[in-house]
Amino acid sequence: MNITIILFDNFETLDVFGPVEIFGRLPEHFSIAYYSLDGGIKTSTQGVEINTGKLTQKAENTDILLIPGGKGTRTEVDNFLLTDALTKLAVEARYVLTVCTGSALLATTHLMDGKIATSNKRAFEWVQSVRPQVEWKRKARWTNQGKYYTSSGISAGMDMALGFLSDILNLEVAERIAREMEYNWNSDKENDPFA
Amino acid sequence: MNITIILFDNFETLDVFGPVEIFGRLPEHFSIAYYSLDGGIKTSTQGVEINTGKLTQKAENTDILLIPGGKGTRTEVDNFLLTDALTKLAVEARYVLTVCTGSALLATTHLMDGKIATSNKRAFEWVQSVRPQVEWKRKARWTNQGKYYTSSGISAGMDMALGFLSDILNLEVAERIAREMEYNWNSDKENDPFA
Repeated sequence: MNITIILFDNFETLDVFGPVEIFGRLPEHFSIAYYSLDGGIKTSTQGVEINTGKLTQKAENTDILLIPGGKGTRTEVDNFLLTDALTKLAVEARYVLTVCTGSALLATTHLMDGKIATSNKRAFEWVQSVRPQVEWKRKARWTNQGKYYTSSGISAGMDMALGFLSDILNLEVAERIAREMEYNWNSDKENDPFA
Repeated sequence: MNITIILFDNFETLDVFGPVEIFGRLPEHFSIAYYSLDGGIKTSTQGVEINTGKLTQKAENTDILLIPGGKGTRTEVDNFLLTDALTKLAVEARYVLTVCTGSALLATTHLMDGKIATSNKRAFEWVQSVRPQVEWKRKARWTNQGKYYTSSGISAGMDMALGFLSDILNLEVAERIAREMEYNWNSDKENDPFA
């Protein structure tokens, strides 16, 4: 399955590379590519520079769309060209995953209206204000409704990615990956110690 | 403080970007730069491409040296040019941090002889064989002796980075960062559920 990760300046480092560590351990299942609206280098708030393809020239299918959060989402929610591109990708994708305030970006597509989603606790009021039509759920490590997965803040993206693996492959694979990473997986999406 | 992160092909993604997420949240304290022996793009086992400076031309002081692990360490432990460069950097640095099998690379400098260190549980026999003169400790989330910090596998690097912040700044800062990341910090370096 092709994973398309959407980047923009001031994305949050671990929102991206937590899930990449997990999916990247299964190259027989997943192929990962980075895209942005205009292509080129995108820099995380923590200074990590990643080269991206141009979203408007994207040809390959997207099986899994991954949208990270970060400070950059504060301005990107008003970027109508990005919203348009995300709408096309999200409709086409088999699965759509967001981390942290990436759910606010996804919400601008209106595809989450009436659907359950969560986000970073410290940005929750802002996220709700971006699209009140979404059923924002404050207490959730992550949520899943149909093909949409949304996670809480930053490191919750790793718990969600493992939960997603458990759903689409099986629990044993997710547990093996967590063990290999010596990661203490919070495997219950309702268990949110930060709510 | 300048953080110098050593990269090589087949470094482990989260070994680097877990700690980068943490230190990168405190730009008033830390400046992060990536170096490799020959410079240029280095690619993680999970396919993340990072541009690096050339270690042999490095001029700035290194306050904190960070050495990640990953499959690449299996060959890099025999790279005498890298060992030489790491020895100079580690002697000069105020602190030296390793994640996962990065401790095997550090051990090739002989600076850890007689000192306590840990590593990834699943590679422990190999790590011990690289330099038996180190006091390898199997059950530890991370270790600290003098200026040297070594962590267990992959995600243990985040727990160590927060523990390091607690040591050199204070506990409140480490706890605040963990909370901001919605990260369930294992703050006891002796608590190793994966041993």
